[in-house]
Amino acid sequence: MRSCAISALVCRAIRHYQLFGAGDRLVVAVSAGADSTTLAHVLPEAAASVGADVVALAHLNHGLRAEAGEDEAFCEALASRLGLAFLVDRVDVAAEAQRLRTSIEDAGRIVRYAFLEAAAARIGATRIAVAHTQNDQAETMLLRLVRGAGPVGLAGIYPRAGRVVRPLLLATRAEVETCLRERGLTWREDASNRDVSIPRNRIRHELMPWLREHFGPSVDAVMARQADVFREDAERLDAEATEIARDLVLQSIGRSDVPLPPLLERPPAVVRRVLLLVLRSRAAGRFVGLQHVDQALALATADDPRAAADLPGQRVERRGDLLMFQTVEPDPRRGGRRRGHAGIGRSVSKDRDVSPDQVREATGE
Amino acid sequence: MRSCAISALVCRAIRHYQLFGAGDRLVVAVSAGADSTTLAHVLPEAAASVGADVVALAHLNHGLRAEAGEDEAFCEALASRLGLAFLVDRVDVAAEAQRLRTSIEDAGRIVRYAFLEAAAARIGATRIAVAHTQNDQAETMLLRLVRGAGPVGLAGIYPRAGRVVRPLLLATRAEVETCLRERGLTWREDASNRDVSIPRNRIRHELMPWLREHFGPSVDAVMARQADVFREDAERLDAEATEIARDLVLQSIGRSDVPLPPLLERPPAVVRRVLLLVLRSRAAGRFVGLQHVDQALALATADDPRAAADLPGQRVERRGDLLMFQTVEPDPRRGGRRRGHAGIGRSVSKDRDVSPDQVREATGE
Repeated sequence: MRSCAISALVCRAIRHYQLFGAGDRLVVAVSAGADSTTLAHVLPEAAASVGADVVALAHLNHGLRAEAGEDEAFCEALASRLGLAFLVDRVDVAAEAQRLRTSIEDAGRIVRYAFLEAAAARIGATRIAVAHTQNDQAETMLLRLVRGAGPVGLAGIYPRAGRVVRPLLLATRAEVETCLRERGLTWREDASNRDVSIPRNRIRHELMPWLREHFGPSVDAVMARQADVFREDAERLDAEATEIARDLVLQSIGRSDVPLPPLLERPPAVVRRVLLLVLRSRAAGRFVGLQHVDQALALATADDPRAAADLPGQRVERRGDLLMFQTVEPDPRRGGRRRGHAGIGRSVSKDRDVSPDQVREATGE
Repeated sequence: MRSCAISALVCRAIRHYQLFGAGDRLVVAVSAGADSTTLAHVLPEAAASVGADVVALAHLNHGLRAEAGEDEAFCEALASRLGLAFLVDRVDVAAEAQRLRTSIEDAGRIVRYAFLEAAAARIGATRIAVAHTQNDQAETMLLRLVRGAGPVGLAGIYPRAGRVVRPLLLATRAEVETCLRERGLTWREDASNRDVSIPRNRIRHELMPWLREHFGPSVDAVMARQADVFREDAERLDAEATEIARDLVLQSIGRSDVPLPPLLERPPAVVRRVLLLVLRSRAAGRFVGLQHVDQALALATADDPRAAADLPGQRVERRGDLLMFQTVEPDPRRGGRRRGHAGIGRSVSKDRDVSPDQVREATGE
């Protein structure tokens, strides 16, 4: 197989982000699109260079488009051509979106990562490689900035998150397509990628080309480079807050108490993150965002020493110099299908308590 | 004078960002445009509510446009109508841009803040109020993101930086114009604000309207809110790095030595900021950005224990476990007009060593 620019970029990403090493066994997520087709072709050699092994391709048939069957057949043929095992599953993403009361895109992400984790467990893989590129990174950063995700959002797609790794993150989509053409390889276009009613596609097909035209063709690279720096900042501040929370927060069953005077003497950036950690620990998987931290902070600094607010999964009450976070038991009339939280390979998509944001966090996308 | 929504937003900004308090004396920078005309009208009452005083309007005649004389006359009439002193100066910004080898916009910012500092000193003002709005904030964040300013850039325009304060930062341009219409006030349009060959205007007139259309009318507010959080993060990490640099860096005349083993065991976010601080301390006012920190970091982690690089104002050399930053004396053939660095009210615009980025940093814009 001929080498191309992408091979070098993948090797660089593996080293730079320490994606995996000797002895790791990888499964590659494939959709039949350009990015993942390229990754499937390039990764085996790059992985071998650090002593790791690509063992399988995994494909989730979303059942959304008429072409879904052809996509699956394409991926199966690709696996066979590369001499790799092929893992496949079918999920009705539209039905799942309705059940989870979320968008097709969010539901797709939830069931996709649940499938990939299950597939990795089944074949004994230690890493799941997905094909996000530098362009995906820039799009994600903009999408989160305009939606208000804060510093956590600007850290972008994580190169490594749990078992998931992203070896194409230093390559652009244009470089990917050049590589495919040079190697004479085919791939399948996903028509839904052109649907600009989907916010990400609007960013991809309208905003990013405009930015490249007016601010230079390397704007994706410029933004992606910053995601690395944002991520380092977030990691440092998270580590500091975790340590402080460990010292400061009094945990009991169903309740966390935070003494305010020693908390509020910390820098605001740390105070916010400690509150975020406590809120998350009582949120039972519900989404906790900037606005909830703001509400808890308002209680902590309020003139009223008995103020209170209902926040995700909990009631937060001010008691003078203390802020109390109390778990609120879910209303049994709303429950019924709740499942256990343990076990490798459990199907995340079947768990009602998993929010799109929680999956985003767990998978770094 | 009737109150309007802007008055409340200005009062909120004064408290929330602790812009000034009892006994402060303010000068308001005015251009004749909608934002600063509004600020001049609203600020005296808002300032009085916390015991501060607006004492003067200050206007710099940029000499750029045919209408410059009319702008100046408008501002003078405004001051007279509000019963305030009027401070004015004229600078040929185009000539200054040529001399400083920078853009008209950068040169304008440099001479404007130099003038405002001098004006404040002359009249004994403790604060300089400038009229940046929430829209300016969102535009600035996007501009810096696409240009690669990193976390420092996303912290946006500072509500308070030295003597400079920005009481309109919680108000939108639309709210400003509503206020002017409600009060039956006039202002002057600056035709250059429509010139989309200027990158900021492209963001303002093309990108922001597109974002509001597709991601909601509150996208400016959503972004501006995040700038506050980014700023808190940056302040925390800067404080940590400053402390570590104080312990770690060995300063001598013309040279800073950084022992690498104790530096490199710190989190990457802190390592980057320590290197930035050291680079800046030897840069003699030259711009130090993300790319220079990357170069210093590459030397610090290089396999070659004798690697070296020329960075702004200094030569950085690896000596085994040490990184040495040595001031490079400026070539005397290039000098000649260098001035002292002390003294209140010195004209920054005449100082060759001041870069646009340095002014941006000093003024928080």
